[in-house]
Amino acid sequence: MTAIDLSARRARQALGEMVEPAGDDDVVVAYARAVWSTLTEPGDGVAGELIAALGPVGALELAQSSGCAGTDIPADDLAHARERWLARTGVVEDALALSRRARVQLLTPEDADWPTRADDLGPFAPLCLWFRGDVRGLGAATPAVALVGSRAASAYGDHVARELAAESAAAGIAVYSGAAYGIDGAAHAAALGADGYTVAIMAGGLESTYPSGHRDLVERIARGGAVIAEVPCGTIPTKFRFLSRNRLIAVLSDATVVVEAGWRSGSINTAHHAQAIGRPLGVVPGPITSASSMGCHRLLRETDAVCITGIDDVRELIGDDRAALGDGSWGQERTDDRTRILDALSSRAPRTTEEVARRAGFAVAEAATVLGLLELEGSAARRAAGWVQAPGARAATLW
Amino acid sequence: MTAIDLSARRARQALGEMVEPAGDDDVVVAYARAVWSTLTEPGDGVAGELIAALGPVGALELAQSSGCAGTDIPADDLAHARERWLARTGVVEDALALSRRARVQLLTPEDADWPTRADDLGPFAPLCLWFRGDVRGLGAATPAVALVGSRAASAYGDHVARELAAESAAAGIAVYSGAAYGIDGAAHAAALGADGYTVAIMAGGLESTYPSGHRDLVERIARGGAVIAEVPCGTIPTKFRFLSRNRLIAVLSDATVVVEAGWRSGSINTAHHAQAIGRPLGVVPGPITSASSMGCHRLLRETDAVCITGIDDVRELIGDDRAALGDGSWGQERTDDRTRILDALSSRAPRTTEEVARRAGFAVAEAATVLGLLELEGSAARRAAGWVQAPGARAATLW
Repeated sequence: MTAIDLSARRARQALGEMVEPAGDDDVVVAYARAVWSTLTEPGDGVAGELIAALGPVGALELAQSSGCAGTDIPADDLAHARERWLARTGVVEDALALSRRARVQLLTPEDADWPTRADDLGPFAPLCLWFRGDVRGLGAATPAVALVGSRAASAYGDHVARELAAESAAAGIAVYSGAAYGIDGAAHAAALGADGYTVAIMAGGLESTYPSGHRDLVERIARGGAVIAEVPCGTIPTKFRFLSRNRLIAVLSDATVVVEAGWRSGSINTAHHAQAIGRPLGVVPGPITSASSMGCHRLLRETDAVCITGIDDVRELIGDDRAALGDGSWGQERTDDRTRILDALSSRAPRTTEEVARRAGFAVAEAATVLGLLELEGSAARRAAGWVQAPGARAATLW
Repeated sequence: MTAIDLSARRARQALGEMVEPAGDDDVVVAYARAVWSTLTEPGDGVAGELIAALGPVGALELAQSSGCAGTDIPADDLAHARERWLARTGVVEDALALSRRARVQLLTPEDADWPTRADDLGPFAPLCLWFRGDVRGLGAATPAVALVGSRAASAYGDHVARELAAESAAAGIAVYSGAAYGIDGAAHAAALGADGYTVAIMAGGLESTYPSGHRDLVERIARGGAVIAEVPCGTIPTKFRFLSRNRLIAVLSDATVVVEAGWRSGSINTAHHAQAIGRPLGVVPGPITSASSMGCHRLLRETDAVCITGIDDVRELIGDDRAALGDGSWGQERTDDRTRILDALSSRAPRTTEEVARRAGFAVAEAATVLGLLELEGSAARRAAGWVQAPGARAATLW
């Protein structure tokens, strides 16, 4: 095993045009992250903790030493981790060479475009992301929905995926998916067709495309949107990496919508991640006579998933009314305060005043005032965990 | 206005064969209830309170006097009520004559076959029920599901209604509905076809059938099941009486399932009643591209309704595993305790130990023991309002 050269010269040489021009220290940090990405599998919590404590460069130095100064990680865990990390130092050069050749670029938490939503994974967050295309839309300023589902989509599922994706795109909502056959591909293609921003999150290295039948689609995504992966070039997609990729789809978007899923669809796993991370989960129902919707119905029964029937439901799910205005500001289309606050309440899940204010686009004090009025008129109710819509709140329109 | 003759002789003469042979006092009570049914509209809470306080006979005597002894009802309310009741004394004879001629019978809370589920409406419960057919299945011993939906059913809705009704019938679950065109009719017909017990609850008097196109169907229901109404013969169905009838469908069954409903279907009203009464509500999803399912999806979004995809979901909804055994006893098919208690928990709605015990068919002490074990293994969690399924409880099977 050769020690990894962490000089600025080596870092610049290895990264080539993978990163924006930057000072020596920044380039070395980016290089260290690229190396870490090669040494680890996605979601390596020990690496995450070590990097959080010492920074990518210090962590890499420690990994190559026998010390454990400056970390709380138990010595045994660190020893095991070292073993698996250092076993891979030999592939770092190849991964970087492949990246340079395929013009794959590197995005790190130090970059302004880094998707801060990823940080919700804590020590399991990606250490860096590899990408092709335009990553300026990855930030939290761009509302984002993950549209996922079965590879074996029915005509109904395909139709719904295209509708929701095109309408999301038209509403300024980025469409995230996994570039698989079926629902994923339909969602990406329709978002592109509507001139929307779409992001494909891949399970393997970006020098090749899986599935290969989607090579053209992925090229088009790389031109109009972004193609990203947590794993470096040269990494083949495995079962574990597909599951890790699913968690990334869930965390990088504001909400996940399962468009169509059979009983054992991988998108159920993505839905599970969304719930575990605390992201809202939406599910499109279908005929109960269709096996292709069985997974969706199971999610509706067994989780807090919200029933999604159209773009308005998607917008409510991601809690971002800005989407409709397209310009990122609250504006002309402001409906009356009462309706907006009611819309921000769930009949089921209590929400704090802060959360309601956020969803409705009010200052907290404004929201508190309107909530008080709604409580007086019996349309909103105060629970231990926050506010809910009272059963009869929408009586006039519903019944 | 003539005073109503409450003698046993008059009561026997008026009721004819409407009631089982009984002693004088019982016949007078039944007669007083029949009279009350004619003097009031469904859900007359003042009448309900008065009868609860003084019995049907005493209440009727008080109603015809000017006193208010023995009741807490404010004098003004009583005066108003008297006015509306006594305005109708002239139609009592006609109503009873029509009933005798149409061989419509009378069921009162004093009868052994009285559906005690109705009492959950308190003072708004029906004062008696008019029926044709066999009412021995109305009691709580027979598990019962209300299958309701739009008159303008799609082929999909019709198919699903027939499937669920036939499977319910085969599982020993009575099928309740409103004998309307569309979903209601499909459910009744399929239950009859599967030799099941089905109950049609009508909005008007039983001497005629609404809709008239369902006269044959209702005759068949009267032969194999029961046709019932809260209103006496001679009463035409009005908007108000349809809504009152809907509340009766909800209260007389263990749970309501909306099979297919457009945005403004009357079955949404039945669903609303089920929720208000505290009965479980199930909803069958459909394609989001179908206007016929829009009401169902709205209920899934805006209420606690459970997504129903088949007979197993119906059985879980009504919380009655007896249904599958058909013999009203817990038996051979008892699965392991852990699974049964988990099945009795919701991931969302906290349930008390007593409720869990009931749903799972355990003694409360047994349920408490198993819940404790499930808590230890992290599959169940204790909330202020009761027990819930922990997020990962079904991890092994679901993901």
